[in-house]
Amino acid sequence: MARQPYKRLFTPGPLTTSRTVKEAMLVDLGSREDEFIAVVRDVRQRLLKVGGVSQTQGYEAVLLQGSGTFGIEAVLSSAIPPHDKPLILVNGAYGERMLAIAARHGLAADALRWPENQITDPAAVQRRIEEDPAITHVAVVHSETSTGLLNPIEEIGSRVKAARRSFIVDAMSSFGAVPLSLESSHIDFLISSANKCLEGVPGFCFVLARKESLQACQGNARTLSLDLFEQWRGLEANGQFRFTPPTHAILAFAQALRELDAEGGVAGRAKRYRANHAALMAGMTSLGFRPFLPPEHQGWVISAFHDPGDPAFQFEEFYQRLARRGLIIYPGKLGQIPCFRIGNIGRLTANDIHELLDAVAAVLQAMNVAVPVAPPRLDPANP
Amino acid sequence: MARQPYKRLFTPGPLTTSRTVKEAMLVDLGSREDEFIAVVRDVRQRLLKVGGVSQTQGYEAVLLQGSGTFGIEAVLSSAIPPHDKPLILVNGAYGERMLAIAARHGLAADALRWPENQITDPAAVQRRIEEDPAITHVAVVHSETSTGLLNPIEEIGSRVKAARRSFIVDAMSSFGAVPLSLESSHIDFLISSANKCLEGVPGFCFVLARKESLQACQGNARTLSLDLFEQWRGLEANGQFRFTPPTHAILAFAQALRELDAEGGVAGRAKRYRANHAALMAGMTSLGFRPFLPPEHQGWVISAFHDPGDPAFQFEEFYQRLARRGLIIYPGKLGQIPCFRIGNIGRLTANDIHELLDAVAAVLQAMNVAVPVAPPRLDPANP
Repeated sequence: MARQPYKRLFTPGPLTTSRTVKEAMLVDLGSREDEFIAVVRDVRQRLLKVGGVSQTQGYEAVLLQGSGTFGIEAVLSSAIPPHDKPLILVNGAYGERMLAIAARHGLAADALRWPENQITDPAAVQRRIEEDPAITHVAVVHSETSTGLLNPIEEIGSRVKAARRSFIVDAMSSFGAVPLSLESSHIDFLISSANKCLEGVPGFCFVLARKESLQACQGNARTLSLDLFEQWRGLEANGQFRFTPPTHAILAFAQALRELDAEGGVAGRAKRYRANHAALMAGMTSLGFRPFLPPEHQGWVISAFHDPGDPAFQFEEFYQRLARRGLIIYPGKLGQIPCFRIGNIGRLTANDIHELLDAVAAVLQAMNVAVPVAPPRLDPANP
Repeated sequence: MARQPYKRLFTPGPLTTSRTVKEAMLVDLGSREDEFIAVVRDVRQRLLKVGGVSQTQGYEAVLLQGSGTFGIEAVLSSAIPPHDKPLILVNGAYGERMLAIAARHGLAADALRWPENQITDPAAVQRRIEEDPAITHVAVVHSETSTGLLNPIEEIGSRVKAARRSFIVDAMSSFGAVPLSLESSHIDFLISSANKCLEGVPGFCFVLARKESLQACQGNARTLSLDLFEQWRGLEANGQFRFTPPTHAILAFAQALRELDAEGGVAGRAKRYRANHAALMAGMTSLGFRPFLPPEHQGWVISAFHDPGDPAFQFEEFYQRLARRGLIIYPGKLGQIPCFRIGNIGRLTANDIHELLDAVAAVLQAMNVAVPVAPPRLDPANP
């Protein structure tokens, strides 16, 4: 199969990484070597810094093999004892996934749901906790990758903390690009992944946690592989993973974290992504696409757009025509509503966004999809 | 930290991979793109071929994120219903690990044990199965990475099959280098990993299975991430992973499988590894090192050696002095017995082994460890 020499991924990840991040993988290191152990130690320290905390403040970073979902399952099945009751806040596919994981482990989970275009309401969370003293943990997705919505983590966290419950945050597609402090958001466990806004390659995920909360996991885990406490204890004991780590992906990640620093940390990265996102939104709406979310709930990581009403528009053809130009967008994940997603994270600048928009315009024309002259309707009350 | 430009890993993996395998990772592909889906399909087909079987014969290949242990846990926690009883054959650390996983999932597992320098006895397995009709599955490690011992898979498999039990084989460090057919060994589930004898980079594992046995897993899995049946069903439905795959590691693996073909498949690879191993054994014994295993049980993947009795020998110093020359060996994993391991798999030839042996001789001299003139004692009855 012919390969495009260079693709750009406008997806929620795996995404476009820098050449230097990929080149960091051109080395084989032994997983129990001093050099690799030093890389792992450095990565764990840097992750805490990205989360606005440190070991001296009582926080710990744990790396775990597998995709982000493995990290979510590691936390839910290590941090929640069998008879505890998590409250899971759901306004998208990734909230639903946490609920599915809790169910798989036989947890009597409760759910609070909102429509996919609305953020979670901290006051409603507080009321539910107050009504139900059996609730022990609250879990929420920060950036719902199914829509690009940003939930109000800090406001939820302060209410969870006031009610003395444990707070679990899936920050998969926000961590590193949306400023956040574990301490000021009162987060006990935060989960994210190497191949999202930190711009590494896929292969592992990580958990940042309050040390006390992590220590309380001892003996809880339902599995050996996803035992968060033992994974942490292994890393602490000799700096090594218990089981073979993805050495190359971790070397790429160490480079990616250096590049984050060079960009000015989370603030610098957020600035670039916000510029990407602004260019994307302006261009897509001028082409007649209607965003799924009202602008006040929209993050700057990924955006969902309604399919145009024009019957000439077929997503699969649209996708393939863009893919033939080396531009990869992403299908929707929104139940019955026909929509698709465009991410603007990874090693992309506004120039890349403009090239994508030019290609979208050309593809729509080739597909004979009408491009409106008038600005599109943008009614947040009726998205 | 200064990095050696080129290291050679004489370990059980992650190991030395070819430049071309690593260079295959210099591309970012979307995980839901046609191009990536085609790579995954190709890899799954090739894996079956390495296992001597095909889909038309009723076998399936499933890739799963994580290290090999994740694959073992996926099989044990997906293939064995809660009230079934596995018999686990143990003669090393990896047999013990299967037992630990079974215990974690609350399975009433039985174990048959042998000393670490003895192979499992098929007749004893048969007797145990005949004595205990409650036993539903038999699980064994093919190449015990803790010693390099090769268990007699085909002989065990034919007895397990005759007794109509399910047969699970951990072929982590043998698959691709030790000829084996799932069909003639009557294997229901075989687990191995990308970064062993197939010479890929770490990041995922895989399971080859009889389709009927795989189908029978539906609804059994204790976890979402390690649900073998759902992982297979996802791959079958649209060719995609359910959760983000390690795209770069899979591209490297596709290249590694092409290089396996170019080397003449499993037979060709076994030939090179056997030559590596013969050179290693001849050299190490002539330097006075005593192999842990009697030669008739020793595979050609990795070998354990007793520490020399000379008090001037300290493994840590020995290891570090070799590491400073870019030669990485491996510590032992054998309870109370002081020993260490040298692997000869990965992109290594007998020339690399000879360079290692020269370095070992120089390091022993520098450490003032006596090198015997007489040939070493090699008494299989008293290793």
